[in-house]
Amino acid sequence: MSVIWLNGDFVAADKPALLAHDRGLTLGDGLFETIAVKAGVPLRLDAHLKRLRDGADFLGLPVPLSDQILHDAILGLLGANGMEGEAAVRLTLTAGPGPRGLPRPDTPAPTLMLAAGRIPAEAPPARLVIARTTCRNEKSPLSRLKTLNYLDSIIARREATARGADDAVMLNSQGRVAEATAANIFLSLDGHWVTPTVAEGALPGTMRAALLKNWRAEERAVTVEELRRADDMVLTNALGLRKVARVLD
Amino acid sequence: MSVIWLNGDFVAADKPALLAHDRGLTLGDGLFETIAVKAGVPLRLDAHLKRLRDGADFLGLPVPLSDQILHDAILGLLGANGMEGEAAVRLTLTAGPGPRGLPRPDTPAPTLMLAAGRIPAEAPPARLVIARTTCRNEKSPLSRLKTLNYLDSIIARREATARGADDAVMLNSQGRVAEATAANIFLSLDGHWVTPTVAEGALPGTMRAALLKNWRAEERAVTVEELRRADDMVLTNALGLRKVARVLD
Repeated sequence: MSVIWLNGDFVAADKPALLAHDRGLTLGDGLFETIAVKAGVPLRLDAHLKRLRDGADFLGLPVPLSDQILHDAILGLLGANGMEGEAAVRLTLTAGPGPRGLPRPDTPAPTLMLAAGRIPAEAPPARLVIARTTCRNEKSPLSRLKTLNYLDSIIARREATARGADDAVMLNSQGRVAEATAANIFLSLDGHWVTPTVAEGALPGTMRAALLKNWRAEERAVTVEELRRADDMVLTNALGLRKVARVLD
Repeated sequence: MSVIWLNGDFVAADKPALLAHDRGLTLGDGLFETIAVKAGVPLRLDAHLKRLRDGADFLGLPVPLSDQILHDAILGLLGANGMEGEAAVRLTLTAGPGPRGLPRPDTPAPTLMLAAGRIPAEAPPARLVIARTTCRNEKSPLSRLKTLNYLDSIIARREATARGADDAVMLNSQGRVAEATAANIFLSLDGHWVTPTVAEGALPGTMRAALLKNWRAEERAVTVEELRRADDMVLTNALGLRKVARVLD
């Protein structure tokens, strides 16, 4: 990655680009999307931009550019980086710079940026643990938005690594299954695919939405007991699917 | 504010200072402290730096400088900004730059920065509402750390403003009182000061710790019914105390 797109301009990725008082950094005041590009086509871009705009509406943040301009910016970014074929593009929207304190400036000047990276190589089936350190807060509307507040997932992933696993299943405040640290989870139970509902703390993933339709999967509450007896499990996010080998104790 | 301190250097506050892939921005992977300076003295600095180091230990982040160097950097920053007397200094620590994904680089290069602002003028007694939009997740250890993940507080504060109030009381997942959006809360009940415990979702504030001692206040679970019948209430954070006028319906 050598060039990013920032508020309409291409800038070097290894040069300082953001003000120290950008609220995305000081308060996590923003959202992001990770978009897979294959054969030069940004996949499920409509779904990504709809989720971005819905989240921005909820947070009261403007998204200053049209879907068409963002689509073209993604392709322009790939061209500028010599990555026309496959890429993982991250779109980040923040509330932009602001003074100390929680309220935003009366007229926010959002930061909108795009960065391109490689799609990771296919990973072996994941060994999971059930996170003990922390849980998803399904009672916060933020559990339904892809926000910059990722520390709970970071500490759950660190716990997984420390326990010899690849990822952690995060439970909700009621002790039921919500999702993995950066992926939704689908379980095969008695021959049917199921996945936790958004109300249970699952992020409404774009791949999740596609699989719900294609696999005729059922959205419902999922218990830890069901997780332990599932016939098969898959982790899903915008970049693809990963099989689950097993859930460690 | 015209100059900030960033990893040991003074740099202009209105110039880009941070890489777009700093994990503080991309994932909220970091911590902060807000330190009041009065008569040239950073108040309760030992408590702030202890909380910072405890939080960094928990997150697995190094704090690369000694307390003495940080103390001197704060005074140097005030001097560079012509603010020797009073200031609100924000110290921000992030995991530094990193590639896409949750795991940190094997050798993190943390971002450590200081910014100075004015201490706000004394505010009139606050009108509060009880947040309906979101709640504190006291089951996450992050509720005990001052992290960059502030979106729940931001949306609760936005709700307060929309409902004609100055601040919102955030409840925990059990529906009991945790704190305000950027302050701890002390209530006078039957002549005794009480404040919610950290286990209930209260951030362990430095001013809170001082008042627990000086006021002989009791830490315990606090219900909404108690909030509504309190004789008196005060919001506290590192910058000072604010009286509460009343809790709106």
